[in-house]
This record gives sequence, C-alpha cells and structure tokens, in this order.
Amino acid sequence: MSRIDASFGVCALLGYPAHHSMGPAIHNAAFEALGLPLVYVAHDVAPADLAAAVAGARALSYRGLSITMPHKVAALGLVDEVDATAQAVGCINTVVNRDGRLLGHNSDGQGALDALERAGVRTQGRRVLVLGSGGAARAVGMTMAMRGQPACLEILGVVDEELCRLGRDVAARTDAKVKTCRLDEESLAAAVASADVLLHCTPVGMTPDTDRSLVAPELLRPDLAVFDAVYNPRRTLLIEQAAARGCPVVLGMEMFLGQAMVQFELWTGHKAPAEVMRKVIEARL
Amino acid sequence: MSRIDASFGVCALLGYPAHHSMGPAIHNAAFEALGLPLVYVAHDVAPADLAAAVAGARALSYRGLSITMPHKVAALGLVDEVDATAQAVGCINTVVNRDGRLLGHNSDGQGALDALERAGVRTQGRRVLVLGSGGAARAVGMTMAMRGQPACLEILGVVDEELCRLGRDVAARTDAKVKTCRLDEESLAAAVASADVLLHCTPVGMTPDTDRSLVAPELLRPDLAVFDAVYNPRRTLLIEQAAARGCPVVLGMEMFLGQAMVQFELWTGHKAPAEVMRKVIEARL
Repeated sequence: MSRIDASFGVCALLGYPAHHSMGPAIHNAAFEALGLPLVYVAHDVAPADLAAAVAGARALSYRGLSITMPHKVAALGLVDEVDATAQAVGCINTVVNRDGRLLGHNSDGQGALDALERAGVRTQGRRVLVLGSGGAARAVGMTMAMRGQPACLEILGVVDEELCRLGRDVAARTDAKVKTCRLDEESLAAAVASADVLLHCTPVGMTPDTDRSLVAPELLRPDLAVFDAVYNPRRTLLIEQAAARGCPVVLGMEMFLGQAMVQFELWTGHKAPAEVMRKVIEARL
Repeated sequence: MSRIDASFGVCALLGYPAHHSMGPAIHNAAFEALGLPLVYVAHDVAPADLAAAVAGARALSYRGLSITMPHKVAALGLVDEVDATAQAVGCINTVVNRDGRLLGHNSDGQGALDALERAGVRTQGRRVLVLGSGGAARAVGMTMAMRGQPACLEILGVVDEELCRLGRDVAARTDAKVKTCRLDEESLAAAVASADVLLHCTPVGMTPDTDRSLVAPELLRPDLAVFDAVYNPRRTLLIEQAAARGCPVVLGMEMFLGQAMVQFELWTGHKAPAEVMRKVIEARL
C-alpha cells in the first residue's frame, strides 16, 4: 500500500528544466524519515508559464516551493512578501505558503553559512573573501554580510558591472565593511594573503573543467578556511589542494545540503534530518 | 530512499473537500504496482479558485486530474476539449493533459458499465431500468444509452425537472429507446417487473440510512440483475435482499473501482491493475 494518501500536502520545485534535480529525492527522503504527510515533486515550467504556475501553486494549496533556474529573479515579483535577505540578494529560491499568502526566501546564502558553522569555521570578526559576483556569490556574499558578522568582506570578480552592483548593494543594505576589486593574479594573491576565510563562488573547477582552480596552491595557508560552492565534482581541485595544504575545507555539497535543510525547516517547522538528506546527495553525486 | 524523484509526473484530485478521498491511495498503489514514475495527490480547491487551479495544473504540467464535488460541472468549461460522453453527461470527472491541451472525460458511467461487464451482466438487447435522475443517474443512464446498447431504457425519479431533462437529453443525443416516469410505488413495481437490469442510482440506503431500500424485496426476481451505485455500506439493503433472492448483484464499490480504472488507463495508457486497486478500496470501506 502506498504511503501517500489524500491528507498529504505538496511541495514542489519549479525550474526549466526541473526534472534532473536532486530536490525531490532529498526532500521526500526527509519527509519519510520524519513520517510527515508531505510529498515533493518537480515541475518543468517554461518562463512564460511561471506566473500561472505560481498562481496555480497557490490555488492548489501547495505548502511550499523551491525555485530554481531560470525563475529565481522573476519569482520574487510573484509572491506576496519577500524576507529581508532574499530582498537584498534580489532573488528567491524558496516559497512558503502561509494560509494562502506566499512568502519568498532565499536559503542559498544561509546554506553556505550553516555549512561553515557545521564544519566549525567561524566568520565572526574574521576577514572573509568572496570570489565571484554572479548568483551564488551574490547570495553567499550578501547573506555573509547580513548575518555572518565578518570583520570585513572583500569581493573579487571579473564582471565589472555585476561586481560593482554587489559591492554597492552590500554597502547600502548592511553594516559590513565591504571592498570590491577586479579579480586578477595580483589582486587575488593580495586578497587571499589577507583573508581568514575564502569562499569560492565562481564556476571554475566545475565538471567538465575539473583540472582548473582560480587559486594557486602556494597561496593556500593552513590557517585559511576554504569553501567551494561548486559541488560537482564533490571535491574540486581547489578543495583537494587546500586540504593537502592543511586548510579546513567545506565542500559545495554541504552548502547544497544546507540550503535544502533551511527549506525543509521553513516548510515543516521541523529540524531537518541532515544525515538522511546527506546520504541522498552523496548517493547521487 | 524515497521512490519519488524529479522525473515523476503528477496527477491530482481537485475537490472541496478533497482530503478524505480514497483516490490518492488507490492510484498511488496502482502506479507503484506498475513501477510508473507518477504520483497522485489531492488538493482542496475552493470554487472561487477552480479556474486558477486548472490553469495552474496546466502550467505545472500535471499529467492528469480527477475532478470531484463540487467542481464537476464548472471544470467542464475550463478544459480545452470534452469527449462526447462527458459532453452528454454535462460534467467531467477526469482530465488528461496531452502536451498542454486539457481533455475532459467522464469515467463514472463507464465505470458502472465495466463493473456490470466484469460481473458478467449483459446489457445489450436487454431492458434496463435506472432509478434516480441526479448526478450518478445521469452519468450511468447517459453512458448506458450511448454505449450499453440496451433494448430500452426506463428512468424513474422524483425530481421532475431533472428527470425530464435527463430523458430529453438521452433521446436527443442517443439512439436508445428511452422512457421516463415519476417514481412511486406503482410505477416502480411495473418498471421492475419489466426490467432485466436494475441500476439503483439514488442515495437511498447510504450510511447512515442503511436500513432503507427503494425496492420492495418481493419485486426482486432471480433473473433481474441488480446494481447499486451506493458503495457505503459496501453491501446495501438492496444488494443484500437481491442476493437473498438469487439475483446477480453488482456493488457500488465495483463502479467506484471501475471509474478509477478508466482514469488510470486514460492517464497512463496502461491496463489498470484491478486487484491492487480493489484491495485499497476494500481496506478503506
């Protein structure tokens, strides 16, 4: 007999494509582990259909949504309320349905912060360096500035306009001491040398380019904590070289897990079963 | 690890309320038995939200819908195409999504016809009597007239306008020889006496009024096949008395199963696993 009956609430991923996501496997395993009457599905939604899909999720009393590419920015304009972090990041990846009112959140940056905390990497009062200025860098950098209490935040990137906007927005919306700089060999060496925590948030090193890293191994010191947002491969060249140098390392997989745990807790009000969820991710990576 | 991943398609029930339906348990058991990557959920949808819910199901690429009270008539106007039977019945209980085009069907009447066939009760060339003129009677009577090839169809009811409209519609839309008559003791006795197949489609005998039957036991002859659309209780007083008289009997549960099997086959293109589905219904009735 099936576990799922008419009492079950529905959570779903909206993406385009959505049908290769790990989300359903992760969240369904977590729902089952806690015996919660919830099921999580994935919907391929073309951009032209996003508004109808969100309205539909409301009409169909969905409990929650995950929002992924390419809908994260557009979805922010379709919900009833957006929390401060997501507002500052400028996009949402999570929606909670509170009695027909759709609340938008962004769990990506918090997922990274939680991953650092689980690994025992402190950010309070420390110098944090973010590499990149795209979507991941923006979520991680902004959330770090808002909640991570770093002594200072330096952001290096190669897309000037994006980098400039991120620096300006962090300065305008948070109390963090923030500095941006165009990423090149020289600025990178200087920034890494003066950082305590390095957060790599560019796609460099991602499959298939697994033999690349932005950071030369000789820059890595054992007292530098290294996080890589890339989770495919599980251990990037940056992570391998940092580990070899004795740095504390935090894998992108842990951020991916972390953002899913934040979503789970927003939807259910229950503490997310980290081990259950990690096992699903490990089995699929 | 959960069975349900991102490749799964979604079917759902829209009703108000929907959360006590047996549909999810039945269809999920059937999907699982055949290893199909589908999951079925139930959504409570208020009448004011029905249009957004149907549009949402389209935007979310739902594979199929079940439509139940109070949405069966309104939903007919929200789909792109309605098959001839559902058009004649005047409401839909099933929607199939063919590449974004929503096709409406009504499986209730066919569910009754299939139940009769599974029980070995022939209707071709035989005199069929329908008791009632409401939703169930309309679906069963109209489908019988369109597909059951009865020698003649007599319909007795107590709501004159409804009865009159049903008789008129059957005459206008089918080749069946149809007659309607106000249901009273005398007309009922005469109609039962000249019928080969009796289809009871009123709520009489339903829980909590399980000690009632429209048909006096002395009217029941062993050569009269007796079907009761009521499935709660599983064996109504009418069914018990008919069985005691030696009549072939067909339970409402079998119509309920039959309409679910038709839905399953419309959504999946696979033969429905009758035994798996019956087991779920039996466990819940």
